[in-house]
Amino acid sequence: MSQNKISISEIKSHNQSDDCWIVVDGQVWDITSFAPEHPGGPGIIYKYAGRDATAAYNEIHAPSIIKNGLSASANKGVVDQSTVTKEWSEPLPDETPKAAPKPSSEKPPLDSIINAHDFEIQARNTSTAKTWAFYSSASNDLVTRDLNASLYSRILFRPRTMRRVATIDTRTTLLAMARLIHPDGELAIARACKTRKIIQSISNNASYSAADIVSQPEVSDHPFIFQLYVDKRKEKTNALLAKIKSHKNVSAVMVTVDAAAPGKREADERVKADESIENPMQKNKPKNDKKGGGYGRLMAGFIDPDLNWDYISWLRSEIGYDMPMLTKGVMSADDVKMALDIGLDGCVLSNHGGRNLDTSPPAILVLLEIHARFPEIIRDHHPNSASVKAGLTRPFSILVDGGVRRGTDVLKCVCLGAVSVGLGRPVLFATGYGQEGVEHLIDIIRDEFEVAMRNCGLTRIEDCGPEYVNSGDIDHLVSKSRGHPYAVGWKAQMALQSKL
Amino acid sequence: MSQNKISISEIKSHNQSDDCWIVVDGQVWDITSFAPEHPGGPGIIYKYAGRDATAAYNEIHAPSIIKNGLSASANKGVVDQSTVTKEWSEPLPDETPKAAPKPSSEKPPLDSIINAHDFEIQARNTSTAKTWAFYSSASNDLVTRDLNASLYSRILFRPRTMRRVATIDTRTTLLAMARLIHPDGELAIARACKTRKIIQSISNNASYSAADIVSQPEVSDHPFIFQLYVDKRKEKTNALLAKIKSHKNVSAVMVTVDAAAPGKREADERVKADESIENPMQKNKPKNDKKGGGYGRLMAGFIDPDLNWDYISWLRSEIGYDMPMLTKGVMSADDVKMALDIGLDGCVLSNHGGRNLDTSPPAILVLLEIHARFPEIIRDHHPNSASVKAGLTRPFSILVDGGVRRGTDVLKCVCLGAVSVGLGRPVLFATGYGQEGVEHLIDIIRDEFEVAMRNCGLTRIEDCGPEYVNSGDIDHLVSKSRGHPYAVGWKAQMALQSKL
Amino acid sequence: MSQNKISISEIKSHNQSDDCWIVVDGQVWDITSFAPEHPGGPGIIYKYAGRDATAAYNEIHAPSIIKNGLSASANKGVVDQSTVTKEWSEPLPDETPKAAPKPSSEKPPLDSIINAHDFEIQARNTSTAKTWAFYSSASNDLVTRDLNASLYSRILFRPRTMRRVATIDTRTTLLAMARLIHPDGELAIARACKTRKIIQSISNNASYSAADIVSQPEVSDHPFIFQLYVDKRKEKTNALLAKIKSHKNVSAVMVTVDAAAPGKREADERVKADESIENPMQKNKPKNDKKGGGYGRLMAGFIDPDLNWDYISWLRSEIGYDMPMLTKGVMSADDVKMALDIGLDGCVLSNHGGRNLDTSPPAILVLLEIHARFPEIIRDHHPNSASVKAGLTRPFSILVDGGVRRGTDVLKCVCLGAVSVGLGRPVLFATGYGQEGVEHLIDIIRDEFEVAMRNCGLTRIEDCGPEYVNSGDIDHLVSKSRGHPYAVGWKAQMALQSKL
Amino acid sequence: MSQNKISISEIKSHNQSDDCWIVVDGQVWDITSFAPEHPGGPGIIYKYAGRDATAAYNEIHAPSIIKNGLSASANKGVVDQSTVTKEWSEPLPDETPKAAPKPSSEKPPLDSIINAHDFEIQARNTSTAKTWAFYSSASNDLVTRDLNASLYSRILFRPRTMRRVATIDTRTTLLAMARLIHPDGELAIARACKTRKIIQSISNNASYSAADIVSQPEVSDHPFIFQLYVDKRKEKTNALLAKIKSHKNVSAVMVTVDAAAPGKREADERVKADESIENPMQKNKPKNDKKGGGYGRLMAGFIDPDLNWDYISWLRSEIGYDMPMLTKGVMSADDVKMALDIGLDGCVLSNHGGRNLDTSPPAILVLLEIHARFPEIIRDHHPNSASVKAGLTRPFSILVDGGVRRGTDVLKCVCLGAVSVGLGRPVLFATGYGQEGVEHLIDIIRDEFEVAMRNCGLTRIEDCGPEYVNSGDIDHLVSKSRGHPYAVGWKAQMALQSKL
Repeated sequence: MSQNKISISEIKSHNQSDDCWIVVDGQVWDITSFAPEHPGGPGIIYKYAGRDATAAYNEIHAPSIIKNGLSASANKGVVDQSTVTKEWSEPLPDETPKAAPKPSSEKPPLDSIINAHDFEIQARNTSTAKTWAFYSSASNDLVTRDLNASLYSRILFRPRTMRRVATIDTRTTLLAMARLIHPDGELAIARACKTRKIIQSISNNASYSAADIVSQPEVSDHPFIFQLYVDKRKEKTNALLAKIKSHKNVSAVMVTVDAAAPGKREADERVKADESIENPMQKNKPKNDKKGGGYGRLMAGFIDPDLNWDYISWLRSEIGYDMPMLTKGVMSADDVKMALDIGLDGCVLSNHGGRNLDTSPPAILVLLEIHARFPEIIRDHHPNSASVKAGLTRPFSILVDGGVRRGTDVLKCVCLGAVSVGLGRPVLFATGYGQEGVEHLIDIIRDEFEVAMRNCGLTRIEDCGPEYVNSGDIDHLVSKSRGHPYAVGWKAQMALQSKL
Repeated sequence: MSQNKISISEIKSHNQSDDCWIVVDGQVWDITSFAPEHPGGPGIIYKYAGRDATAAYNEIHAPSIIKNGLSASANKGVVDQSTVTKEWSEPLPDETPKAAPKPSSEKPPLDSIINAHDFEIQARNTSTAKTWAFYSSASNDLVTRDLNASLYSRILFRPRTMRRVATIDTRTTLLAMARLIHPDGELAIARACKTRKIIQSISNNASYSAADIVSQPEVSDHPFIFQLYVDKRKEKTNALLAKIKSHKNVSAVMVTVDAAAPGKREADERVKADESIENPMQKNKPKNDKKGGGYGRLMAGFIDPDLNWDYISWLRSEIGYDMPMLTKGVMSADDVKMALDIGLDGCVLSNHGGRNLDTSPPAILVLLEIHARFPEIIRDHHPNSASVKAGLTRPFSILVDGGVRRGTDVLKCVCLGAVSVGLGRPVLFATGYGQEGVEHLIDIIRDEFEVAMRNCGLTRIEDCGPEYVNSGDIDHLVSKSRGHPYAVGWKAQMALQSKL
Repeated sequence: MSQNKISISEIKSHNQSDDCWIVVDGQVWDITSFAPEHPGGPGIIYKYAGRDATAAYNEIHAPSIIKNGLSASANKGVVDQSTVTKEWSEPLPDETPKAAPKPSSEKPPLDSIINAHDFEIQARNTSTAKTWAFYSSASNDLVTRDLNASLYSRILFRPRTMRRVATIDTRTTLLAMARLIHPDGELAIARACKTRKIIQSISNNASYSAADIVSQPEVSDHPFIFQLYVDKRKEKTNALLAKIKSHKNVSAVMVTVDAAAPGKREADERVKADESIENPMQKNKPKNDKKGGGYGRLMAGFIDPDLNWDYISWLRSEIGYDMPMLTKGVMSADDVKMALDIGLDGCVLSNHGGRNLDTSPPAILVLLEIHARFPEIIRDHHPNSASVKAGLTRPFSILVDGGVRRGTDVLKCVCLGAVSVGLGRPVLFATGYGQEGVEHLIDIIRDEFEVAMRNCGLTRIEDCGPEYVNSGDIDHLVSKSRGHPYAVGWKAQMALQSKL
Repeated sequence: MSQNKISISEIKSHNQSDDCWIVVDGQVWDITSFAPEHPGGPGIIYKYAGRDATAAYNEIHAPSIIKNGLSASANKGVVDQSTVTKEWSEPLPDETPKAAPKPSSEKPPLDSIINAHDFEIQARNTSTAKTWAFYSSASNDLVTRDLNASLYSRILFRPRTMRRVATIDTRTTLLAMARLIHPDGELAIARACKTRKIIQSISNNASYSAADIVSQPEVSDHPFIFQLYVDKRKEKTNALLAKIKSHKNVSAVMVTVDAAAPGKREADERVKADESIENPMQKNKPKNDKKGGGYGRLMAGFIDPDLNWDYISWLRSEIGYDMPMLTKGVMSADDVKMALDIGLDGCVLSNHGGRNLDTSPPAILVLLEIHARFPEIIRDHHPNSASVKAGLTRPFSILVDGGVRRGTDVLKCVCLGAVSVGLGRPVLFATGYGQEGVEHLIDIIRDEFEVAMRNCGLTRIEDCGPEYVNSGDIDHLVSKSRGHPYAVGWKAQMALQSKL
């Protein structure tokens, strides 16, 4: 079907919040009714009202999203290229990157990058301000984001020497999840994970659809984990799961449980807010926008805030017991216990990189909380435990993410009972170098991990245990009882009294 | 009655400490006998001896204060406008603001302000040095002021996931108290509190009189708390209370108990001290002024340092048992216990924003001290407790203020048993944008609060409990016994021996 | 007796280390044999070989020292003023002060100084580099010097409210000790202490001799404490004590016990070291000077390193039991106990301002150690204790110094059982303003102290007790047992075994 | 035998990785087959392919190394000096030192250096970037390197006063190990150690061979410790030991046990990485070099990663029981216990200056761990213990290194039971001043040590005990049990269950 050609002057006339067209990849879209529901807030869309939004769109979204997300009637046609003017083609002033991104050939060579911090520095230097704000931002005052990383430095090793460590056997799993800094995005990550035997998790929030990623020929025989954000329209989730299950290389489902309310990521909000200052469209913005307190709140529009254990139970049987199922975003030992009791196969201790709730606990603290409160979870259900190996108990896998930047961080988690450790932002930053960058990052972390194992006197993952770490500097941060130590009994008392 | 017209040259001749006239809003006042008792010290008044003090006066005081505060005979007449010269009209050099305050239209738009810190930055950038010093200063080395805020960042949440949090019900109360950054001052705050259903407390130290504020038509049906500074002339206090009780929307009385001696707010004192350097009047200042150690000491001249529990008991019955009465400025669990035992309805844990006694404990520590030492106060007397609900015990409300800047801070207090949380400086700073600014601030805090509740798995205030917070990082700062742990028995021993 | 006149050219010819003359106040001294024993090291003297050292001398020493210290034969005569040249009169380049010291009239007015920190800033800005290095320096890495001050900020108050605090009664004692920043030095301090009813302690290391100070007419009826540095030539000490006892206003003797070896005050040493670089005299300096490790080691040449309890006992009876005697420089609870048991009247917990042994404990920690290990010392021997008042036990006074900069610091010490608190450096810095400066400092500290008492709900010194402070943040720093907690028994075991 | 003369143009033609000649001290070497095994990685060698590497070589290696390390056939001849060009003689651009190293006469005089920090600053200012990176670098994020030093500042003394300290007797031993900052390198150190009665340890990784060092005539009667890196080719180690034992002044052997895997010293790696950027040779570098993760990994090529207790036992008897044998690099109390039980004579608590495993524990923590877990090791086996002196138990010596910069640090170690303390980097930095510099450093540390002893009231090493230190600030960092406190029983449980 040939598409309607639309002139630039026509497009430019639809530049109001109540009549808003934008152009993406030459396609003209009427975005008027969608804009208020845009996960990234309407402000950024209104900025491109009557304009070409291709560059901004591609920085965040995969090509298929807009087509799948909007109704067919929203597509007005294609740009009449004969009407394009020089002024039309020029970028808006604030699209200028913070520092002009160097062409890949001018970047420092990958060889000169020797740790995860280098990737971050490189990404900061070459991203646009907007992209950097999005990836680096976290909730409120960044307390949790910073704790995530700093707590690892406060855990010491207890190395043993004089053990034969010439050959070591590491079979740990690094999880990766990424959006776009490099045009290849998750596709490149997937290929890198394949060559490095790392499992990637892909969410339905990814830049590319999970289907696009897992069906790449190069990775068709490599396992993936599908990370599910449950839609408040349950039928959408069900359809998605059915589609995903059709891909044989999806080997587990991980349900995101920590996104009940989107966090306030202020660096990210601030870039938007700054834009709004210079944006002429803001003048006819409805006044109660401001009172709403920032656009970021709209971001998780489709995610179900009423997610609950009943639904998880239902989902558990719906997905089928042959497909491992985990929860991701667990921040308390109680919820780990709950996941075990309800029949799940594991959970990911995570605070979403500190992006949702500031002063929420780092995963490593929750891992220590499990040891303090429910030691049996690790003792009897760790896949390497004697109990599981003897077939007496079923395995339950605890994964950890947030703040991991070094192989030593990974080893500390493994010693404390994590079966796997996830890397988020570092992988994103490495994506700037494409597949090769991600591979280099994984090689770095793995090398650091192996050096640390050897220098601790360890040669096998199953030998790693808590006796190799000393968390004395952070033990006072671990919740050791169900209630607050100085508030024993208030609620308990109430419960008791109400039973009398 | 037509007023006497006084020429500028006449006014200018009364420029000595023993013959001191000033002009405010065109009125000429003989301030000679009042100056030494000026709460802000005589120095600032002497600076304007024989001059027009209108601008300086209005920055701090409401119009009615001078009229009500001085005797009629102090009024000498009005300025003879025909004698005004150009030199007379020019401001003194040090009235120049730190940075020239931008007209409201040039300020960054309210939209670009996304948290309480932003309001503070904005206020610092646009206030005069004197105003900023007054509002931001605190006692001595600012240890308590800074602890007030930093301790909140050291309390972690213990979030629970997978709970239905689509709809939440928050009925918490933010208290606000303000003086002037914006000409509308407390009037604007009152109106904003009304639209946001927040209770404002007004003190008899406010820029506008409490009567002015509560009798605004827009807020006539909105409740207020009256914060009382007890005058050493008890009859003044009694008269004030009688007047206040006549306003039906004054719903509680809060007696300030932490102002026994005014603190040494050095940033504030320093501005005055600097002024004194350039002030020619200082030459005939009595020498023992210096030995007095700064003007600030005179500031609380009218406040009764002999306030005591007997008076509180008497006041309790005088005010009447139908009017809730609280103490404000409590810094020890013992004084909370005392307030409960003596029959009050609650108290406000507060160190006056760190303005009175440096290294006094932040309210959150006192709240934890209550849990550690008198858990029954919260367990059995919290308005939401089973015991109160069953009518077995009477309710006692604990409020908290100092250092609260985030909705997460509020939630931590509520989880630990506070029924309400007060905001001081942030509200003042928001007042720079008038009523709309205060509303925006309240919206920001409330949004942050609700996001935090959801992400902790909470939907109702009464579900908030200590099991949702982890104060492990600050528990060592909590006083856990009556005596000092390393000094058991010294005084006790003395008491014991003296009984033998 | 008329003195020999000596020409400038003659003086200048004695400019070698083995033939070294200097001029002080017009007097010509042959200092060849004294120089190697100079407490400040020979380097500084050699720098002035054949020159006028008056300015440098007066910066450190009182006029009488050189006359009393050198033999009569060392005096060669007076400068023949007719031979003085312009070149002779010019100062050496490195005598230039860091910032040219402003004449007193240009200094900021005393009014603008509102706390002890201000005095320090003022002193730093106006002292020569050499003087500042001498006063501000402390041992090695300054750990103890900085801890001395910072620990106070980590102790919180536990204030009580609603107590009648209109009138308060403070009879605490501030000790002061000073050398020279102002020409009047200790003389000014003595007069200020008199007007403020503060006891001054004077050492035999002071710039002016103790006799000069206590015999000033203005202070003849004001009590002093004599601080004794015991000379290794015991007869010198005995003579000194006899002389001191003849002054009726010397009311106590305080024996310095923490100067067994002079500390390495590097800022101080560095200034000297730098001088040596440019000093031509250094060329013929014996090479093993360098190996000696710095001149500072020579500084305490006359102090007896073999001071011991036997001598203290002997001194106790020698001085007489009617003269109170204390030790100063005690850094362990054990030595406090020893002082009590041996019959002394008290001791001063002090680490010499951190000048002798880096990482030695701040006095406040030793005070807490007493509570932890020998609570009876304070409980039963504090002059205000019930036991002493009843005549059952003898009084033993614990004094504290080091790092005290605020009235709140003083109150914390008093609450923990100190009967008095000493101020060192702040008094020195205040001396830059002469007597009036010291009075101003005392007034500031006293005002801060009284405000703190009132705001804690305290009105009498004897009501101050440990229940008013919360040292939770530093309790882990307190030594709680005789041995190291992780090393129980090694030495004990040795002792035990050796008895078997 | 006269050597073949080779022209510059011939040499320059061998500039590929598969045909690589270099010139050192006029000798031409074919280094093609050795380069990939170069401990410092091949990159640095390829940079000099076809060039004169003398300067770079001599900065790191002693003259004898290349001759002993390469086969005779690798020597191609000598440079034909008649063919040398100006271009040939010029250094490569990146050999330029960071700051041009001053000729010794321009350095600040040794007198002006008053502590170990000064030596470090001096070394940083005058080394080439490469040399500085090598010496100062440590593993990963430098957590351990910095903790090594900072923990000492957090241990306080518990000084006793009033003890006769005029004469003291110190017979502690400082160990030193050095490579090259000064051409004389270890030779100078050895001579300085001799004059100062300090024992030097020399490794088979030293710049000069151990044989060269110990056979210097000046030190022929001074004892040395030989530090052994065990070669994976055991016959090499055996030959080395035989040779070493022939030197009568080698009095002990210390086996390095913490180099199982070389750490990732990023500053060091980064310099190399930067070089690689500009190095044209890198273009034909095999691609998997990058994947290997940096050259540093190759550095310990010859060290045996399969070193184990069985080998140590064998070595013990091989070396002979009359030669004391220790392990160096012990980081856990368990390995100390093991060393004692297996019959060794002591061990060195060390984390290799933080160079191998980041977040490994500082030696001082391991020393405290011994007290907490195996107090009998020190109590019954310290050479000064009553038990050893009575002949009931055999002596076992614990040595400590890492982060020691002050005499006070040394005293803390000695009080906690160390018989000796090692200095690494400070000695290297002092070597910049040759033998005299090392002597000055030792004098400084010894003076600081003696002052600290005196001020603690100590006069003999055997009186030093844990009761003189207060480690309260770091005790929470000490591992107190075999397992992790929050993970009791997981592995134990596994072990238990597997026995059932």
